Amino acid sequence: MEPLTGPHDPRHFGEDLAVLNQVLLEMAEKATRRVEQAVGGLVAGDPAVLEEVIAGDEEINRLQMEIDDRCFKLLALHQPMAVDLRLIVATVKINGDLERVGDLAVNIAEAARRYVRHRPVKPLIDLPRMGAIAQGMLRDAIRAFVAKDAALCRDVLRRDDEVDALKDQIFRELLTYMLSDPETVEPSLDLILVSRHLERVGDHATNVAEGVVFLVEARDVRHQVPPAGA
Amino acid sequence: MEPLTGPHDPRHFGEDLAVLNQVLLEMAEKATRRVEQAVGGLVAGDPAVLEEVIAGDEEINRLQMEIDDRCFKLLALHQPMAVDLRLIVATVKINGDLERVGDLAVNIAEAARRYVRHRPVKPLIDLPRMGAIAQGMLRDAIRAFVAKDAALCRDVLRRDDEVDALKDQIFRELLTYMLSDPETVEPSLDLILVSRHLERVGDHATNVAEGVVFLVEARDVRHQVPPAGA
Repeated sequence: MEPLTGPHDPRHFGEDLAVLNQVLLEMAEKATRRVEQAVGGLVAGDPAVLEEVIAGDEEINRLQMEIDDRCFKLLALHQPMAVDLRLIVATVKINGDLERVGDLAVNIAEAARRYVRHRPVKPLIDLPRMGAIAQGMLRDAIRAFVAKDAALCRDVLRRDDEVDALKDQIFRELLTYMLSDPETVEPSLDLILVSRHLERVGDHATNVAEGVVFLVEARDVRHQVPPAGA
Repeated sequence: MEPLTGPHDPRHFGEDLAVLNQVLLEMAEKATRRVEQAVGGLVAGDPAVLEEVIAGDEEINRLQMEIDDRCFKLLALHQPMAVDLRLIVATVKINGDLERVGDLAVNIAEAARRYVRHRPVKPLIDLPRMGAIAQGMLRDAIRAFVAKDAALCRDVLRRDDEVDALKDQIFRELLTYMLSDPETVEPSLDLILVSRHLERVGDHATNVAEGVVFLVEARDVRHQVPPAGA
């Protein structure tokens, strides 16, 4: 069979992996901050903050390309096996999830920009709560990935139910407004869209967390699956 | 430097790759068919079809796991370099996109199930058109991936603008209904949600197409990026 490591110094591989984790954490923090900024701009009714989010973030795009590039280099130079291989492929997937979170921050800011042009429908309490939970899920899912912490992942998965419940609650409440006053239809629609975008931020955190559980408990899970190459 | 292929017979690798492409095409076809079924069930007002989509599709889940598994085996056994490596990592990403498309079919069917319980708001013309374009984009993006056809990809990217335009048109029209008749608010909201889900199907097709352009024109693109490992 193959050697367990590639022809390069395994210590070098370990260092490269540590740097990769660091860049991934940085990317996650920036993507989460953008969601925070978009929801904050909505609550404060501050168009300048929202415009800043919509204008995009060159830094996130740069980090995304850097992470993909680092993953390819690690795969190509070290040709890692088993656990290390899964880890790097998982990083590529998580990188994709974080990129989408960055896009969702833009979607939230766009809906918020339309919303703040209208008279406020109601004081915003559940939406920022939903945003805070989704952001916390994302931060913890990435921390759990770096620390290989399956217990923290299960906690992230549990919180997704809270996000879904808040989304339903927000929907029902806004529906009442829309049915009783046509003037609230347009701004309410935008708040509903924001809640859907936040739900998807939670979904991406869930993706990351499920990936970590798979990674940490890979051997047990795979035993239950018939081999595909057979 | 490393050998260009792993220790296994490169012809064997080529065969494995062909099988992987075949399974990916199968997965793409099934995911697209589920979207088609969900939109068809909405247009026909057929709850039985919608329930079938919502009940899930074990086969797609099985294919998704099989594709991930095949990718890992190819990476681990053949330790491919350069183009082959990118190809397999791209397959893992596309597999993720197709899984989401399957989930979106469920989301569409759920909104449609609520919608068909109400009196129809209007004859559905733009929504099935939007669905047909999104499905065509997805099919072509996968065909372009297998054929490494960058021109077909650019055609897919162009069609995403049509999907976005239809989404805006549907939104504006339904807004008019909602503003004039509160009875249409709830069912209109569900149609708006369906249009957003279809937009996301188009986004996933766009992801796949952008990945193919990157894959086919990798060398030129990468030259413009400073090396991350430096």
